[in-house]
Amino acid sequence: MPSPSPLNRRILLTARPQGVPRPEHFTMDAAEIRPPAPGEFLVRNHHLSVDPAQRGWANDEGNYSDPVPLGTAMRALAVGEIVESRADGFSAGDFVYGWFGWQDYCTATPAAVLRLVTERDLPLTASLGVLGINGLTAHIAFHTLGRPRAGETVVVSTAAGSVGSFVGQLARIAGCTAVGVTGSDDKIYAATGRYGYARAVNYRASRDIAADLAIACPGGIDIFYDNTGGEIGDAARALMRTGGRIVQCGTASIPHWTPLPQGPRCERQVLTKRLSWSGFVIFDHLADFPQTAAKLADLIRAGQITYDEDITKGIERAPEVLAGLYRGENLGKAIVSLV
Amino acid sequence: MPSPSPLNRRILLTARPQGVPRPEHFTMDAAEIRPPAPGEFLVRNHHLSVDPAQRGWANDEGNYSDPVPLGTAMRALAVGEIVESRADGFSAGDFVYGWFGWQDYCTATPAAVLRLVTERDLPLTASLGVLGINGLTAHIAFHTLGRPRAGETVVVSTAAGSVGSFVGQLARIAGCTAVGVTGSDDKIYAATGRYGYARAVNYRASRDIAADLAIACPGGIDIFYDNTGGEIGDAARALMRTGGRIVQCGTASIPHWTPLPQGPRCERQVLTKRLSWSGFVIFDHLADFPQTAAKLADLIRAGQITYDEDITKGIERAPEVLAGLYRGENLGKAIVSLV
Repeated sequence: MPSPSPLNRRILLTARPQGVPRPEHFTMDAAEIRPPAPGEFLVRNHHLSVDPAQRGWANDEGNYSDPVPLGTAMRALAVGEIVESRADGFSAGDFVYGWFGWQDYCTATPAAVLRLVTERDLPLTASLGVLGINGLTAHIAFHTLGRPRAGETVVVSTAAGSVGSFVGQLARIAGCTAVGVTGSDDKIYAATGRYGYARAVNYRASRDIAADLAIACPGGIDIFYDNTGGEIGDAARALMRTGGRIVQCGTASIPHWTPLPQGPRCERQVLTKRLSWSGFVIFDHLADFPQTAAKLADLIRAGQITYDEDITKGIERAPEVLAGLYRGENLGKAIVSLV
Repeated sequence: MPSPSPLNRRILLTARPQGVPRPEHFTMDAAEIRPPAPGEFLVRNHHLSVDPAQRGWANDEGNYSDPVPLGTAMRALAVGEIVESRADGFSAGDFVYGWFGWQDYCTATPAAVLRLVTERDLPLTASLGVLGINGLTAHIAFHTLGRPRAGETVVVSTAAGSVGSFVGQLARIAGCTAVGVTGSDDKIYAATGRYGYARAVNYRASRDIAADLAIACPGGIDIFYDNTGGEIGDAARALMRTGGRIVQCGTASIPHWTPLPQGPRCERQVLTKRLSWSGFVIFDHLADFPQTAAKLADLIRAGQITYDEDITKGIERAPEVLAGLYRGENLGKAIVSLV
């Protein structure tokens, strides 16, 4: 058994951000490692995940979950190796992906685990992105709610993003034509060059996103995988074909939902086009993780799925990597490596 | 074989209405009966259906179907007996429900038939309502898109209407609590007394439909069967429970959809509550008609489903019955009987 280092470096949330968390909201310390009690294990983190959702966790605004308490390690997904276990079903040497936080070590129960990492032939960092909630979200939402059929047209907002970059590839694998919406020419280049998109529209450069999207989708849209909502969503809904499916996976374009902002009414489109518009939250689908990760791993091995990573070394840099996310600086999954 | 009468009385659409069709838009004539050609049959109508959708068919505004040409018999559903057949699968003496128009006789092909009427122990008029598109819509949409589970709360807009009057009863049969939204105290009385609703809200008398609906649904809404859209829909969507289903079956509260009217944005509710919001048009489901009508007929025979009819005798009165529909005068399926 590897010997735990004597101290656990942690990135604590020590000030409550309004909006985007910046480095001044965090403080690094080093604490004693708490040995696992019965039913717990001790995991040594190898790689930390940096995700846009952490803004919501750090804020007080309430989202799916309670805000991170001040003075505790920043909530984060991570992948690491169990170094000591007193929990049934987990052994030293197992690699696990779960809620282990921005720290070197985490003493946790099995409830913190999202997935046991079994595909040891692939890089361990893949567990945080393509085999983590991003890839799992793309695969499960696209297939269960999107229900793709070959020949269909799939539109994805934030096409080059952490989820959209996989939806485009999964759409292409399913025999669909993927059309991306994204916010820079670099991202259009990545979407069409690497992420399976037949074409992509830059919504920031567009004077009329509805018109540009209509040109990109001359036969209409069968599946709209929406990560933004707002005007991009309005434009896409107007182009839906009869029987189309809308997968609502995010609402990134709208900063505030209280009170509800106004937009074009949707009832008539839903009715006359027989749309099926569904919301997707990945944590409802934990039971599907093992089989879906296995499918994604096979697609990686077969060279059918590509993934990009933006890896920074050193736990102390996690806060600046997070702040950079909101400036759109990264392309690929943002990861902080500890090993 | 019954002998056809020598002339076919018809109610022709002879002027194009703007808005509600009134008697001055129609003219009655009497024409020769055209004998069926090979592949056709001749049906004698017993009962004519009078439906709100006929407004859209008579107008030029375009809907699901082309407008009724001026100078032709008003498009309508009807039930009658085949008196002569040269079409495979149809014989003299068969009773059929279909697109036979406001006239005594119709020479038609099997494409005009929605359903062969097999439950001859029930009144033939039932084929136009509870066993016609109203009851079939309620049953198919509620069960396939609503996916009810016992104990759930179901809200229905136009609860005492031609479809809503069955959704309330089907919800009760499924073990759900049905809450109606309707527009008069008479309709509240019918909804709660006859149509299966545990309680109902009068949206015309309400000063705050959102607050009143929240009181009527203290645990939230699992299924929202929406026939109106608009503010009633906004109020119901705000009360949806996680995993709720919205069945969009009509948009009666909004008169014009070009350009799209504004309302509260829905993306966040769909996402965070994992809603499933689907549009339903009955004519997509013709293949399900025989088995669904058989289920409804069994529920009628078992005394589990009640239905109301508002029958007027005489083909010449069809236009005034139609005009009365839009004044909300009828309670129950509007039918014009010819026999």
